[in-house]
This record gives sequence, C-alpha cells and structure tokens, in this order.
Amino acid sequence: MGNAAETLSDRLDPDVTDPADLGEHLERHERLGRECAALPDARHGLERGTVVVDGDAVVRGYPSVPRALVLDPTVSEHFDAERVVVEEKLNGFNVRIVDLGDGQPLAFTRSGYLCPYTTDRARTLLELGEFFRDHPRAMVCAELIGPETPYTTHDYDGVDSHALRVFDVRDRATGEPLPIDRRRERCASYGLPQPRVFGAWGTESAPRHVRRVIEDLDEHGREGVVMKSPDATTALKYTTETHHHAELAYAAGTPFERGRDFLFSRVMREAFQAYEFDEDGDRLRERAHDLGESLLLPFVETIREVAADGGVGDEHVARGDPEHVGALLDHLRAFGVELEVIADETDGDDRVVRFRKVAESTRDRTRHYLSGGTYDE
Amino acid sequence: MGNAAETLSDRLDPDVTDPADLGEHLERHERLGRECAALPDARHGLERGTVVVDGDAVVRGYPSVPRALVLDPTVSEHFDAERVVVEEKLNGFNVRIVDLGDGQPLAFTRSGYLCPYTTDRARTLLELGEFFRDHPRAMVCAELIGPETPYTTHDYDGVDSHALRVFDVRDRATGEPLPIDRRRERCASYGLPQPRVFGAWGTESAPRHVRRVIEDLDEHGREGVVMKSPDATTALKYTTETHHHAELAYAAGTPFERGRDFLFSRVMREAFQAYEFDEDGDRLRERAHDLGESLLLPFVETIREVAADGGVGDEHVARGDPEHVGALLDHLRAFGVELEVIADETDGDDRVVRFRKVAESTRDRTRHYLSGGTYDE
Repeated sequence: MGNAAETLSDRLDPDVTDPADLGEHLERHERLGRECAALPDARHGLERGTVVVDGDAVVRGYPSVPRALVLDPTVSEHFDAERVVVEEKLNGFNVRIVDLGDGQPLAFTRSGYLCPYTTDRARTLLELGEFFRDHPRAMVCAELIGPETPYTTHDYDGVDSHALRVFDVRDRATGEPLPIDRRRERCASYGLPQPRVFGAWGTESAPRHVRRVIEDLDEHGREGVVMKSPDATTALKYTTETHHHAELAYAAGTPFERGRDFLFSRVMREAFQAYEFDEDGDRLRERAHDLGESLLLPFVETIREVAADGGVGDEHVARGDPEHVGALLDHLRAFGVELEVIADETDGDDRVVRFRKVAESTRDRTRHYLSGGTYDE
Repeated sequence: MGNAAETLSDRLDPDVTDPADLGEHLERHERLGRECAALPDARHGLERGTVVVDGDAVVRGYPSVPRALVLDPTVSEHFDAERVVVEEKLNGFNVRIVDLGDGQPLAFTRSGYLCPYTTDRARTLLELGEFFRDHPRAMVCAELIGPETPYTTHDYDGVDSHALRVFDVRDRATGEPLPIDRRRERCASYGLPQPRVFGAWGTESAPRHVRRVIEDLDEHGREGVVMKSPDATTALKYTTETHHHAELAYAAGTPFERGRDFLFSRVMREAFQAYEFDEDGDRLRERAHDLGESLLLPFVETIREVAADGGVGDEHVARGDPEHVGALLDHLRAFGVELEVIADETDGDDRVVRFRKVAESTRDRTRHYLSGGTYDE
C-alpha cells in the first residue's frame, strides 16, 4: 500500500480541520468491507461528502461549483486568472473514485456514500489499474451519464447504456486538483474518457465565446459548460435553456417531491439568461412559452396518471453484475425509496432492472386533492 | 356604550381560549387613542388577527378560507349543507369594521392592525351610523378594492378610485356569521354595497354551475368565487386562470420579495384547474404559454429596470384626508417598507399620493447578480 505510511496530518492543509476530529458530525456506514464516516454538510473547510475510510484514509468531497446567472461580467469578476478553459458540463451523477492501495477502486457518491453498484460500474467501465499504480493519491472525479443509470436518465448520443467521463483529478486527501492541461494529458495517456473541451479564452472575451458554445449546446439538447482557471482551482458553471426547461419538467412531473427552491432557482436562471441573450421580443416570448409548457404539461400529466391510478415517479435502469444491482435496489429501499420494478431481465452476464422511484408525496398529495381535499393557506 | 356590560367570558365559546389570557402571544400597538393587542397567528381556536381593544373588547380575526383545487368532488366533500351560495370573490384587501360604542367605527387589517387610513376610508365610504346603532355587536367584513388603495391595485369596472364591498357580517366577539340571506338583506336595507351573488345550487350540481361562472369571470379578468353554506359557517374559494396568471406576474415582478411557496402554490392551482377544465390539448398549451409569459416577462422586465437603475416594486395610491394619508405612509415606513413617492397631489379635500413600495431584496439581489455575483447552490 503505497500511501500506508501517511498520517492524516501529513495530508491536510493545516487550516483545515482533520475530519477525524469531526466525529459527532460524521455519518457512518459499512459497504464492501469498508467502514466509512461521511460528512453530511460542508464545514471547517471540508466539503460535503468528505469521507474517512477505515478510520484512516481521507477522501475529500467534491466542492460545489458556483453558477453564473449572467456571463458578462461574472466571468471576469469571478476569476483571478487571465484565461478560462471551457469544458462541457455533462448531465449525470458525480462520482469520486479512489484506490486505497489494494488495487480495488472504490466509488463514492456526492454525499460520501460508498456505492457498491457505482464501484462495480467504475471497475467495469474504466481501466484504472495502471493509473492508480502510478498515482496512488489520485481521486478521479467523473460523471456517470447515460439512459441506463439508477440516478439520472439524460440521453447522450453515442451512449446507449451508461458511461463515465473524467472531469477532474484531485489529490484524494487535500482535494488539490491537477491543472487542466496535465489532467487532460494524463487521462488521455491512460485511456480515461473526458468531457469535450471547447477552448481557452481570456476572461474578457470568454462571455462572447461561451455564449456561442451555449447556443450550440442548446440546439443539441445538452446541459452546459464548466469554466475553470487553468490550474483548476476556480470553477464557474453556466447552463442552457434546454437544460433549464428539462429541469423544470422534471420537477413538475413530481411536483411534491422537489423543493420549492428547485422551481424558483430554475425560473431565475431562465430570467437572467433571457435578459442577457434575448433582446428580441419574439425570442423572449418563445422562451416563455417553452418554459410554461415545461412547467404545466408534466404537472397535468402527473395528475392524470394519479387519477388513473397509474405510477408516478422517475424511471431508471440499473444494469450490471446481478449481485451489485440487487445491492443497489436494497440500498435505495433502505433509504426509504419506494421502488416499482417495471422489468427485470438478463442481458448476457448483466442483470437489467427498469424501475420507478415512486413519488410518494406527489401521489398522496394529488390523490388527496382529487378526492376533495382542500388547500388551506 | 351598548355593549359595555358584557364581559369577555359572556362573549366567547367556552372551548375557545379567552384572548386576554394569551398575553405573551399578543402584539401591542396604539392607534387612534386605542390600545390594541393582536394575535399574530391562529391559536387556541382564535383566528390570526384577533384583537383585544383597550383590554376589553374582542374583535375576532377573519378565518382563513380553504381553497378547492378541483371543483368536483371538493364541493360535495367539503360542505355538510345541501346547497351552496356562490358569491364573487373580489381582489382587494380584507378589512374588519366595528363600533365599540362611541359611534366611531374602527377598521382592522387582516393581521389585526388598527389602521387609521382604512378607518378613515371606512367612515367616508360607508354609511355605518344607523347600522351599528341597531347592531352594536356586528363586525362588518369588507374588501377594500380599486386602483387607488395602498395595499392592492386591481382595477374594477366602475371603481375609479376605491370602494368597499361587504361580504360577511359577524358577531365581533364570537365570530359567528349572519346567515347569507339575512346578511344580504340587512346590508341592502342599510345601503351597504356587497359583492355579486351568482346563485345557490345543490352541492352535486354546483361544480358544473361554478365552472360556467368561473369561465365568465375569467373572460372579464376577475378573481373568482367564494362558495358558502347558507348559514355562512363553511366557505370554500376557487379562482380563475386570469387571476393565477396575474398573481404569478405579480410575484415575478418582485421575485426576491415573494416567498417561493407563493410561486409554487400558483402553479399548483393552474395545474389542477387545467386537469379539470382543459381536456383539449390546444387549450392546455395556450394556458401553458400564458403561464410562461406571466412568469418570465415581468421577471426580465424587472432585471432590465434594475440594470437601468430604475425603480422596482409595486405602485400604489393612497387617497383621502391629508392627515391619515400621512399616517399611512409613516406606518408603512415604520414597518420597514422603503417608499418612493412618485407623485403627491391635492384633489379637492383629498391628498393623493402615488408611491412605490421599493422591492429592496429584488433590487439588491438583482444588482448583485448583474455585477458578477455568483449563485452558490
């Protein structure tokens, strides 16, 4: 174990609290024979989802990325760097993959859960052995994308089932990122797939270039971009109209599950983007119509489904090793998610389960109102 | 003073706590030489806005009226009565007017504030002397409507400035309402103006009739209806699409002032109404487009105003006795509302002030984002 001799204090910024000292704030779970203690919220300089594994190895959380509501002047205000590198932001599930020295990579979700299913996917989809032998302290930050994932459902051209894209490589214990040039080169040399890079521009001209990129991504129904300083320490995200509308439709399809903040924040993104992009009144009106359809049509469709005693909730697919697929479904159920299995099939060595995460609040509230319950303000 | 001999306990349902016993929960203010103690939230069987005046006279709050999200079956589920009386719900400001025995009516806002301005308006707009001499325990519940009010701005045909419409008469201390027939007759005989009544229908057929009424009100840009049991003890409200969109536009014009619940609850009303009314896909799509415009256009307009250093916030007019208009403006300022006076004129004996309630959060948040501030999720 290449890093067995490290101590926690060697690996941490002295200004950052040692996560092992946050005992009472850590939430414990055991998976794959590992004892994990995860930090449920950011504190003391540590990111949400920071994990201490087996009481010793620190796996830092992935920092939250601030969002620009207008590109100009936010890009130049936000970055100290003179240039920003613009990469595609993919609509998937944020995963951190580390190897604690035994050649068996482990994958953690954003919240710090050591997920056996995602771990199995990471080991299957990525060739990580040589990479971790050469870079034992690395934390590979990747997005799990594609229609067949248990967490998200966005389609990507060329991804029939699911895939991982590495968008960051960090020091597992300090969280320090590799500069973008080195990360892209290193991932390429080990055959790790990455998101597209659109270019690098000075912060003054970036808004103009990013807007062109965003318009193109929008036409192709994709999520948006992440801008980063070349050293990858500072990041800023910005998303497309299509993505905002897809998010609103997602929220409106299970309206009583999503927070009200979810709805408001998406409308806000739209309004600021419309202010910056849509000088044209017709264009603005068209955006408004699309926004209204995104909000209302899925909501009405859900009410109709409930009225017809149909199922409501997001459909997902879990594909992989039968044991890990089973463990995933058990895990979701253990977290209180009611699952409705729609299909459970075998495809070669894979078990492929299509299931619905039942939107219980939406189903129950909607039934209540449809059967004559009043809304008391 | 006709009711001076009453004691608090005479006047209250024994199951209801004597408001004088809620000392620590009451908020005190003094206006027009009266000491008021108001209940800021519903508790112990007492409505929010219940007031004890001069330590003795109880003025009950106006109960919150539940809302139907679908008419069928909510009307028949909600009412024990066989019939419901359907009256127009006006878009204005809920006011309670009482006379504590000195022939000087006092007007309270929904929250229990003894409002000198509204009191002056009530004394000016309504002939209350004979009414209160004959019915000293009465509480006149009225809506202050019209374009020239300091609280709302909805236009009504035939109301150039402002007016009061009496929609309920209750016992001031017990809150017991007059049955609708007697209330309409009594108000008519004393010349007190009332909202329109559309009819009385059995609870089974009411949804069909109310839907027709709602469609007609919708075409005329009006708010909706209140259905009541004939004894006026049970009520249920239902509103028009036009009203929902107006509310969304209102919220979207000052998005950081209104709660996120405000936005969500209006979208919800729309979705359930669309489910019940809009079997036609084109009709549903048209509603969605209008909803989208209501949300997005005022929001973008507000961002543009802030970018141009213009004023944001609702415009209102206060018209009346110069002293009371001044007191109203002072009162609003004392409650932390930043006012921008747009015009301050004299019209006969009236002082007419047009002012903006500055939407400080919207202005400040919007400036922050426009100057490059990020949104951190």
